[in-house]
Amino acid sequence: MRFSKRTEDTMESYIMKLISVANEPGMISLATGLPDKRLFDVAGLKEAAKEVLEGDGARAALQYGVTEGLPALREKIASRCAKEMHIKVSADNIFITNGSQECFDHLGKIFLDPGDGIVVENPGYLGALQSYSVYSPKFVGVDLNENGPDMGQLTDALNTHPKIYYSIPNYQNPSGMSYSDDVRKEIAELMGDSDTVLVEDDAYGELGFEGRKRRSIRSMNEDVVLTGSFSKIISPGMRVGWMIVPDEMKDAVRTSMEASCLHANSFSQAVMNRFLERNDLSEYLRPIRAEYKRKRDLMLDLLDDSGMDARWNVPEGGMFIWFRTPEGTDAMRLFDECLKRKLVIMPGRPFHVRGGENTIRLNFATSSDEEIKTGVGTLGKAFSDLF
Amino acid sequence: MRFSKRTEDTMESYIMKLISVANEPGMISLATGLPDKRLFDVAGLKEAAKEVLEGDGARAALQYGVTEGLPALREKIASRCAKEMHIKVSADNIFITNGSQECFDHLGKIFLDPGDGIVVENPGYLGALQSYSVYSPKFVGVDLNENGPDMGQLTDALNTHPKIYYSIPNYQNPSGMSYSDDVRKEIAELMGDSDTVLVEDDAYGELGFEGRKRRSIRSMNEDVVLTGSFSKIISPGMRVGWMIVPDEMKDAVRTSMEASCLHANSFSQAVMNRFLERNDLSEYLRPIRAEYKRKRDLMLDLLDDSGMDARWNVPEGGMFIWFRTPEGTDAMRLFDECLKRKLVIMPGRPFHVRGGENTIRLNFATSSDEEIKTGVGTLGKAFSDLF
Repeated sequence: MRFSKRTEDTMESYIMKLISVANEPGMISLATGLPDKRLFDVAGLKEAAKEVLEGDGARAALQYGVTEGLPALREKIASRCAKEMHIKVSADNIFITNGSQECFDHLGKIFLDPGDGIVVENPGYLGALQSYSVYSPKFVGVDLNENGPDMGQLTDALNTHPKIYYSIPNYQNPSGMSYSDDVRKEIAELMGDSDTVLVEDDAYGELGFEGRKRRSIRSMNEDVVLTGSFSKIISPGMRVGWMIVPDEMKDAVRTSMEASCLHANSFSQAVMNRFLERNDLSEYLRPIRAEYKRKRDLMLDLLDDSGMDARWNVPEGGMFIWFRTPEGTDAMRLFDECLKRKLVIMPGRPFHVRGGENTIRLNFATSSDEEIKTGVGTLGKAFSDLF
Repeated sequence: MRFSKRTEDTMESYIMKLISVANEPGMISLATGLPDKRLFDVAGLKEAAKEVLEGDGARAALQYGVTEGLPALREKIASRCAKEMHIKVSADNIFITNGSQECFDHLGKIFLDPGDGIVVENPGYLGALQSYSVYSPKFVGVDLNENGPDMGQLTDALNTHPKIYYSIPNYQNPSGMSYSDDVRKEIAELMGDSDTVLVEDDAYGELGFEGRKRRSIRSMNEDVVLTGSFSKIISPGMRVGWMIVPDEMKDAVRTSMEASCLHANSFSQAVMNRFLERNDLSEYLRPIRAEYKRKRDLMLDLLDDSGMDARWNVPEGGMFIWFRTPEGTDAMRLFDECLKRKLVIMPGRPFHVRGGENTIRLNFATSSDEEIKTGVGTLGKAFSDLF
């Protein structure tokens, strides 16, 4: 097979492999980024699907649609952004995609020539790094600290005129950390003087345990590309994500979407739209946020009680706790040891451009209480055997 | 905006634009490739969706799935290929995509470096040409005659070692023509001696008016990539397509899908799978094939009666009649003249690598009888004003 150069350049992703391993019988997993399926509103979605297919728009929902996505759904996203994020945006600047993962493919395609720079968080979201890697860029990693990126490193990186700076300011995947208010302001200004496009990935933004506490960078700078998703809050299987882009990008995004898939799933979009008409999203999110907060606290308590000589953070939202084995140790050994004991955890190393050998991403959202208890118990035993 | 080189290289597609124009009030369209929405089995799909969301698999249908696609649906596609096309293939070699359009993006991504050759039919399907154009290849056009590609041109083209030969042997888009049995055999052999990957796009293959009369090239050569879709026969809005790939391509396709969208819509796949369990596909297709045949005949009769000094073909299936204005005339003038009279037709020129100035693609599938009658009437009047 005479594959393209970019096929060789494309990174491996451990995500889908770990999902396969995690699906093996008897396996407990704290490894993935799946939402808790017990929280899916199956009855509500069934009713929404029924109403779509009984309504006047049934045949339109089954037919080809417009590239940009269902207008009514884009209007709802625009309203939500105005209400929750102080972002004034026309639905014309919103594109619906097959999950927000697809946004990163489009953005890589539109901007990245081989060798072009892209600034990524270190650690950064592996799935997005994989999307961008297809276009053979040069990754420039900026270390994350507890308030966001290292601003010195970020300034230096932007001075090399990278095409994109890819960020997850809220409850970051994998680290669970959030950018502070000051850092957000500083970045919004920094980007104003830069020819780099900031991509603000807000996949977890609706999962703040105290609601939305912090400002979106997009609300302070209209040139920012904001990506979002219904995957973490309603259903990932329906693959409905979106992005807000500035006017100058609209034609390029439309053409890229047309060329790759014509448009996102009309049926899913119509069902999602109907579901949002049937629900007040903030009310709908209340018990989901509470449940994830409860499970975060459960995992934190279990970690505290475990006596492990390790460090971890307290995320303000999202799905992940960032766990560090002692400085100088190799967390891959902990991964191996846990796997022998039927527990899958996600090593932090693959999320890094450099370093991260002693890190682990723990997901507290997907599993049941029982699984979390057993999982952290197994983690503790494996840990004390090793370190 | 500092876009990538490939953004400049990406072709315009008139398809989505024409869909917009065609949606304007009072407009009649014979321009698009949309199936007849009156033929959608809305009640059957509603029942299928209901059963998915009431069944044990409801939460799985709403959760992230495996990259390759729903195993049960891939098994059904494998069975259908065995039964209808004499193709023996394992479900492991089948990938479900967001419509078969997405296959062409993956294939371009996996194979095409800038400047690599890709053989395309002249005329060829514009949407696929646009997908491939993203990867800046060199297009090599092979003229179509009434039995398939010009075999001399094809042989010459393959001697330049292109990466891909992209073909639609059944009821081609845009020309409605089908490859003859002899040509299929000859191509299957020719490809056996070649390092070029044949992509056999079978989007319209299930819409043969006498059923499946001709052999798939994949059934004679296992290295062929076969793409298919439920868009033209069940629902395009659900975006469920698929491709069969040889073993050596599986890893590359999986990685490409993972990187671009993780996987196709789980919910649509589950509903489609349930719909196929509820229906015998051949029985289901019988009235659809009959209806499209009836509408083809209606359009052919109207064209015959119109007295236009033009030529057109009689397609064995699919959705399109290929219409030629007199040699040396410019069919774009007919397009403009029709548009003034509120009729949208699809000029053939954009489907061509060279030539095609006097061609028009007419769709007999999408419109009602009334619209077809008015449309061909308008076409005839515009034609006699011009030529």
